Amino acid sequence: MSDRHGSLISVRPDVKVVDCTLRDGGLVNNFRFTDAFVRDLYLANIKAGVDYMEFGYKASKEIFNPDNFGKWKFCNEEDIRAIVGDNNTDMKISVMADVGRTDFKKDIIDRKDSVIDMIRIATYINTIPAAIEMIEDAHEKGYETTVNIMAVSKVNDADLQAGLEMLAQSNVDVIYLVDSFGAFYPEQVERLTNRYMQIAQKYNKTIGIHAHNNQQLAFANTIEALSRGASYLDATVSGMGRGAGNCYMELLLSFLRNPKYNKVAIMSFVEKHILPLKEEGVVWGFDIPYMLTGTLNAHPSTAIQFIKEKRKDYAMFYQELIDDAL
Amino acid sequence: MSDRHGSLISVRPDVKVVDCTLRDGGLVNNFRFTDAFVRDLYLANIKAGVDYMEFGYKASKEIFNPDNFGKWKFCNEEDIRAIVGDNNTDMKISVMADVGRTDFKKDIIDRKDSVIDMIRIATYINTIPAAIEMIEDAHEKGYETTVNIMAVSKVNDADLQAGLEMLAQSNVDVIYLVDSFGAFYPEQVERLTNRYMQIAQKYNKTIGIHAHNNQQLAFANTIEALSRGASYLDATVSGMGRGAGNCYMELLLSFLRNPKYNKVAIMSFVEKHILPLKEEGVVWGFDIPYMLTGTLNAHPSTAIQFIKEKRKDYAMFYQELIDDAL
Repeated sequence: MSDRHGSLISVRPDVKVVDCTLRDGGLVNNFRFTDAFVRDLYLANIKAGVDYMEFGYKASKEIFNPDNFGKWKFCNEEDIRAIVGDNNTDMKISVMADVGRTDFKKDIIDRKDSVIDMIRIATYINTIPAAIEMIEDAHEKGYETTVNIMAVSKVNDADLQAGLEMLAQSNVDVIYLVDSFGAFYPEQVERLTNRYMQIAQKYNKTIGIHAHNNQQLAFANTIEALSRGASYLDATVSGMGRGAGNCYMELLLSFLRNPKYNKVAIMSFVEKHILPLKEEGVVWGFDIPYMLTGTLNAHPSTAIQFIKEKRKDYAMFYQELIDDAL
Repeated sequence: MSDRHGSLISVRPDVKVVDCTLRDGGLVNNFRFTDAFVRDLYLANIKAGVDYMEFGYKASKEIFNPDNFGKWKFCNEEDIRAIVGDNNTDMKISVMADVGRTDFKKDIIDRKDSVIDMIRIATYINTIPAAIEMIEDAHEKGYETTVNIMAVSKVNDADLQAGLEMLAQSNVDVIYLVDSFGAFYPEQVERLTNRYMQIAQKYNKTIGIHAHNNQQLAFANTIEALSRGASYLDATVSGMGRGAGNCYMELLLSFLRNPKYNKVAIMSFVEKHILPLKEEGVVWGFDIPYMLTGTLNAHPSTAIQFIKEKRKDYAMFYQELIDDAL
């Protein structure tokens, strides 16, 4: 057990829980949440002891037409403030910005003028220089920063090592291990987290984990990364997120032993807002098509389409996926 | 990695997959499966390369009135044969018998006269001598045997060690680690499997794993036990089983690398039989109430009742559970 950080019954003071319900869940419903949903989630997260609440993306309005999305795709300063005021709470606020899909120089204002605390930068392995430009911009503006290297299950070891070294030499605070396709087993998360931690320890960085539930492993992979040293833990209420969704906040808060965390507030939010959302027909969560894209290390888009079309011919879908992969 | 058995890309020849859909799934619908369901499952399991198919229980007809249950609660020889004939296949057939709830001396006939290959004996820690009596009876009748020590999450270390030693000195072939309440994290499964494996290696026994999905960890715990040396792996189609259900057969077969395993046959069975069953309103699988009993290491019966009553007041239910636990 000597290689595990902490025990199953103790508190790890470095742990931070990040709620991504609006951001990853927004991919399910085009960010069209009611204000009541967002406000109640904000209040529930505060009660639950969540450390960061991510409100959505800072997407470019030149690329994405605001008429086609809810406001959390863009996270205007005034829209966040309409929910949180000056956010005089212990919970911090984050937004995500994708490399190449954001007008960060214009749309991300100085932190002293913003209610946002942390900018999370999502990048692929081949856009790390652009990510570093965004990191440094946000850092200079006074923000905490994370970088989320997506789709690492498709990245070869040498490239990953080089990318991690580049990022670790930037001013980023947290480097995230992201299992975009829900392709990893806990044994792989163990190896990868150990690798990220080596870099983190060398450059005094912190590691985070963002998992997907294609193989019902989002929670297992999150606590595996945690026990290998990851500190920033992403979760969403009832796992709401694209395709198979994410690590359930309910499960994560049940697992953590810090008495500041309180899953009851989240469960009451589920009763009030998530169950009605599901009854309206908003669909996410583990299903066989996502398992298939996960095991094939493929983007879930084909599985999302399969489910949208209400197809059930799993065997044929699997053949189509294998054809695509060849 | 040196403490793991096998790798993520190799075949472990000791692995045996046990389908418990009728047995654990029967707890959901009182064993009332149609003959078409059972026959198609049998054929799907053969195609899928499943090693053992469990047909149900050998329950006492003096305790349980056959009018109140489907036939797989009792697994009469002629009922199994009506599905499988002489079972001239590579797949073996098992049934489960609970200590104290079976007339094993009468109802379990000699293996040479039976189409059953393996008797699985379910016991609590305090009925191990009775379990050993059943093991020896089944062994003398010519059967392969397993013993499944239930609810070990409630057993103290000294009792577990003593119980394992007693069982290891019997003629049982396989000793199962059973997470009855879905209470274990993979880290605990690692420790427990290592412990079971120490006994197994000393007495030349084999270890099995039977997991429940209360915390979305049934699959993760199954592959954790596997990688620590467990060989007999229980799963059910779409996780069908009491409460939160079991490890999904679809996931397990996706994970295993032996080319004899074929998840496509199982997915087609899901399309034909499991989706209609769910549409009829047969309910199982992960839900918040099962998470709560799992994390409290409690029997799922209260959660099953909560869901049957269509209650949604999770916070109040949690308070009731905590009261019960005190």
